[in-house]
Amino acid sequence: MPETIPKDSVGLVQPHFMHFDEPLSLDSGRVLPSYDLIYETYGTLNPAGTNAILLCHALSSDHHAAGYHSTEERKPGWWETCVGPGKCIDTNRFFVVCSNNLGSCKGSTGPVSVNPETGKVFGPDFPLVTVKDWVKSQAIFSDRLGIKKWAAVVGGSLGGMQAMQWTIDYPDRIQHAIVIASAAKLSAQNIAFNEVARQAILTDPDFHEGHYQANNTLPRRGLMIARMLGHITYLSDDAMRAKFGRELREGKVNYNFDVDFQVESYLRYQGMSFVDRFDANTYLLMTKTLDYFDPARECDDDLSAAFKHALASFFVLSFTSDWRFAPQRSKEIVKALLDDDKDVSYVEVEANHGHDAFLMPIPRYLEAFSLYMERVAKDACV
Amino acid sequence: MPETIPKDSVGLVQPHFMHFDEPLSLDSGRVLPSYDLIYETYGTLNPAGTNAILLCHALSSDHHAAGYHSTEERKPGWWETCVGPGKCIDTNRFFVVCSNNLGSCKGSTGPVSVNPETGKVFGPDFPLVTVKDWVKSQAIFSDRLGIKKWAAVVGGSLGGMQAMQWTIDYPDRIQHAIVIASAAKLSAQNIAFNEVARQAILTDPDFHEGHYQANNTLPRRGLMIARMLGHITYLSDDAMRAKFGRELREGKVNYNFDVDFQVESYLRYQGMSFVDRFDANTYLLMTKTLDYFDPARECDDDLSAAFKHALASFFVLSFTSDWRFAPQRSKEIVKALLDDDKDVSYVEVEANHGHDAFLMPIPRYLEAFSLYMERVAKDACV
Repeated sequence: MPETIPKDSVGLVQPHFMHFDEPLSLDSGRVLPSYDLIYETYGTLNPAGTNAILLCHALSSDHHAAGYHSTEERKPGWWETCVGPGKCIDTNRFFVVCSNNLGSCKGSTGPVSVNPETGKVFGPDFPLVTVKDWVKSQAIFSDRLGIKKWAAVVGGSLGGMQAMQWTIDYPDRIQHAIVIASAAKLSAQNIAFNEVARQAILTDPDFHEGHYQANNTLPRRGLMIARMLGHITYLSDDAMRAKFGRELREGKVNYNFDVDFQVESYLRYQGMSFVDRFDANTYLLMTKTLDYFDPARECDDDLSAAFKHALASFFVLSFTSDWRFAPQRSKEIVKALLDDDKDVSYVEVEANHGHDAFLMPIPRYLEAFSLYMERVAKDACV
Repeated sequence: MPETIPKDSVGLVQPHFMHFDEPLSLDSGRVLPSYDLIYETYGTLNPAGTNAILLCHALSSDHHAAGYHSTEERKPGWWETCVGPGKCIDTNRFFVVCSNNLGSCKGSTGPVSVNPETGKVFGPDFPLVTVKDWVKSQAIFSDRLGIKKWAAVVGGSLGGMQAMQWTIDYPDRIQHAIVIASAAKLSAQNIAFNEVARQAILTDPDFHEGHYQANNTLPRRGLMIARMLGHITYLSDDAMRAKFGRELREGKVNYNFDVDFQVESYLRYQGMSFVDRFDANTYLLMTKTLDYFDPARECDDDLSAAFKHALASFFVLSFTSDWRFAPQRSKEIVKALLDDDKDVSYVEVEANHGHDAFLMPIPRYLEAFSLYMERVAKDACV
């Protein structure tokens, strides 16, 4: 944490646990007999309960969206840029909730948790979960929090998919869906990248069919490769050029397979450090959750039909240089909503940062986001 | 081979070997005391020796550019689309030569060859070679063939880089440089993809620091991952969508890590079959050759300065959906040449096939290519 907490930070925060004893039936047909969710909240729920905002996190992220867990923590939560007093999602006005998704390795029940039925870590036996499963668990969680209707459900990337699913499954419990740098389904290319990442993990001899913990090892190589690959898709070609170009680490090429270019060094570091903070079974699961998301499938691939009963207002935002979920993918969502005569606003933000732009302080992005949040505030009477 | 050889095929062909006893000094400072090149030729050298065309191959390709090696061979050479009687590169008019690059695993001296100094396979001890080294070896090879000047040096992708290098290093030995779907240097993103592929191979426990043969094994997993990744970059997002979409192999998702989507099945097949026909040390080497190519570097990053002494006429061609070497990369080459007042023609072909388009029978591509080849023929007096 910086020596003095910035005034626009929520400051010191702590996570909370909630235990659920009611079984949760999953899309796969399997049932979780009980589970925990870990979450954080910022701001205060107003007496009318109208000012609650649910943040949904992306692939490798968690419930720690803003502030600091301790004075030793160097980095704040993942969306510090957008969440805090006076920020886009203004914690002086809104009660902000961010829960960690089921199947994560960050505190909610997932592959690294102990299976109460066996007394052993779930590992690869943890069921695959879908965006629909997540939203279902979040709805039950909302009941326990006493939140009947979210002023907004907000997310970037995989988080945006959850916001969309909310409008479909619980149309009367969400006032606004804010869908940033997302897509209504993965493209074949998106799935292809996920499949390469999965194969890197699955074929690592230290993977042991997911039972690496029981074998006292970790599929470090596979998870490293998966993360390196992921990183390429989070950055734009332009962003990589601006950040690294063809800069050589030692001013010359080595004529061997050590690091020649800075970009190699960066990727290796990203890959290796990820291994210490993420779980391979969880990574596999999360990529499948992404691949499976496709609300239009149940409606003969008609996305408008999928959104037909949605009641929320939508705010869709994309970034020009995002090639993981390009603006075209956001426009597909917008088109489907317009075909349904839904209330939808769309902004395409000029930005060179690629998919990662949704985490960055890009002025036009923050302006457009803040502007829309004024509307959310008005509807929430705050 | 089809039951009857198509009339526009060069038909049955066979490779030739040429041995070189003169040492070859490489960019890395190392010296190859002797080496072999394997090559094929199609058509006949005219008495004046003006009609010779050198084809330069790309990353995982070889000297077998056209025709069939036997009646059992199911697939013809890699550029059958463009090379043959009456085709763009018309073997009725031109004497076409394609040699396998040094460092390959397809017949020319490379990592899988026996090092005459040790009596053992080179393996990882084979020196890294550069595009400049290749062109140098091709020039010596040209001397032995008795070809003083190529009517054209032609290549796609990494092959186009060799054509460019020829104009820089041997300006008076090349009349036309035909550079298809190429770039004057890799971008940080290009290097990043190569680095992920390399790490997949280098970290495979069966790699044994490149001495896998001595350990009676193969880094199958790493090479498979590398190839799967490569394949994604060869196809456009559109091409993948057209080819696979989100089609499910069994009509439903499995909720496990078996193949759900057709694209996964395709990629796994591509990856696994590659392992049986390519060598991991060679793959590593070839990616470094790509990364290192940057003729402007010696000229303070001024590409025009690099081309300053070129005498060739240039034909540069790109494909709209190629995101590995996008049209913008070709335009950088064209711009540098125009700044030098060089003779350059440029065509950007509308095509959905991605980088692989240069191997495909796209009518507008073949038309533009044929048209330029008429000019090459005229200059060659054929």
